[in-house]
Amino acid sequence: MFVQKGLLIVLSGPSGVGKGTVCSVLRKEQSDIVYSVSATTRSPRIGEVEGINYFFKTREAFQQMIQNNELLEWAEYVGNYYGTPRRFVEETIQQGKDIILEIEVQGALKVKQTYPEGIFIFLIPPSLAELKNRIIHRGTENDENLIRRMNAAKEELKMLKYYDYAVVNDEISKAVKRIQAIIEAERLRKERILPYYEQWLKEEL
Amino acid sequence: MFVQKGLLIVLSGPSGVGKGTVCSVLRKEQSDIVYSVSATTRSPRIGEVEGINYFFKTREAFQQMIQNNELLEWAEYVGNYYGTPRRFVEETIQQGKDIILEIEVQGALKVKQTYPEGIFIFLIPPSLAELKNRIIHRGTENDENLIRRMNAAKEELKMLKYYDYAVVNDEISKAVKRIQAIIEAERLRKERILPYYEQWLKEEL
Repeated sequence: MFVQKGLLIVLSGPSGVGKGTVCSVLRKEQSDIVYSVSATTRSPRIGEVEGINYFFKTREAFQQMIQNNELLEWAEYVGNYYGTPRRFVEETIQQGKDIILEIEVQGALKVKQTYPEGIFIFLIPPSLAELKNRIIHRGTENDENLIRRMNAAKEELKMLKYYDYAVVNDEISKAVKRIQAIIEAERLRKERILPYYEQWLKEEL
Repeated sequence: MFVQKGLLIVLSGPSGVGKGTVCSVLRKEQSDIVYSVSATTRSPRIGEVEGINYFFKTREAFQQMIQNNELLEWAEYVGNYYGTPRRFVEETIQQGKDIILEIEVQGALKVKQTYPEGIFIFLIPPSLAELKNRIIHRGTENDENLIRRMNAAKEELKMLKYYDYAVVNDEISKAVKRIQAIIEAERLRKERILPYYEQWLKEEL
């Protein structure tokens, strides 16, 4: 039997925009989507669970994954590696299940090179002032880091043009609903339905 | 100030699939969309109001509209003319408002020639048996007409490939929700947001 490949959905946006929060709410509400878990060399924060929030790796293990081409994308960020294990993503969409990757802007652009048919959603802040606010309120940044992160965020904001959809994260619940609408609409695209439909027509007519 | 053109949304599908019902529910729920009112030469049914359900025209007036190129699409169907007044559609989208056209399959394909950037949604029945049921239960068809309409519907069903989205009309409320998701997603397309976004970036950065 023909099985349509699942959707590969990439949720990205500038640092500080709230990707993680939006994605975790989406994850609770939408159990019909598989979530890709990133690998990282940074230490687990309190409450973070191996295999749910991240796969926690040593630098050596991570570098081995890079060598073996086991990562769909990876980047080094503030001294730590982050990356997306390739095999899990590929197996999930081959089985016809939809998967979502919540990743950084640069990583998303790398995924696009491999999967141009993916659905690339860019989260944007309601304003730059608000983005600055959010970065400050994480409370982990000194002034120099803050300026560096704001400048990086400004560069990242210019990347919308490489994405398919723009979603303003003004309120988390609203942003989640918008993303859900995008996913529902993409599932209804003629191209996805046509193979089944033509089979159905043949049987019915 | 730059104003993005509104979306031109075309809702179509085979005769008997329930376009009218779905569209009237959508119309109640979604007041931010303008509805295109067709012109016709058929007589008003009980409860139908001029300018809301149709613009009722004489054959002479309708033929004059055809002559003057005032119709975006038109067709003759069971001895009556049906058509979409062009000017209202064009003015609405020029003002940046979204408009929905609920029209027959052939008419939709004509609109696509003029507006390939439109969003073409094809309603499909859950099964052919169900479509036959619906055509019978309209109660206005004799056997010969029924067979003719079923054959026409079968031909129309093959037209999905010219559309952008397929929506199964298994339950009216579900079909309406799917259409709403499509409209919301289309409004979030990068291409629609980018002109405003680049202006916003210029001001903020």
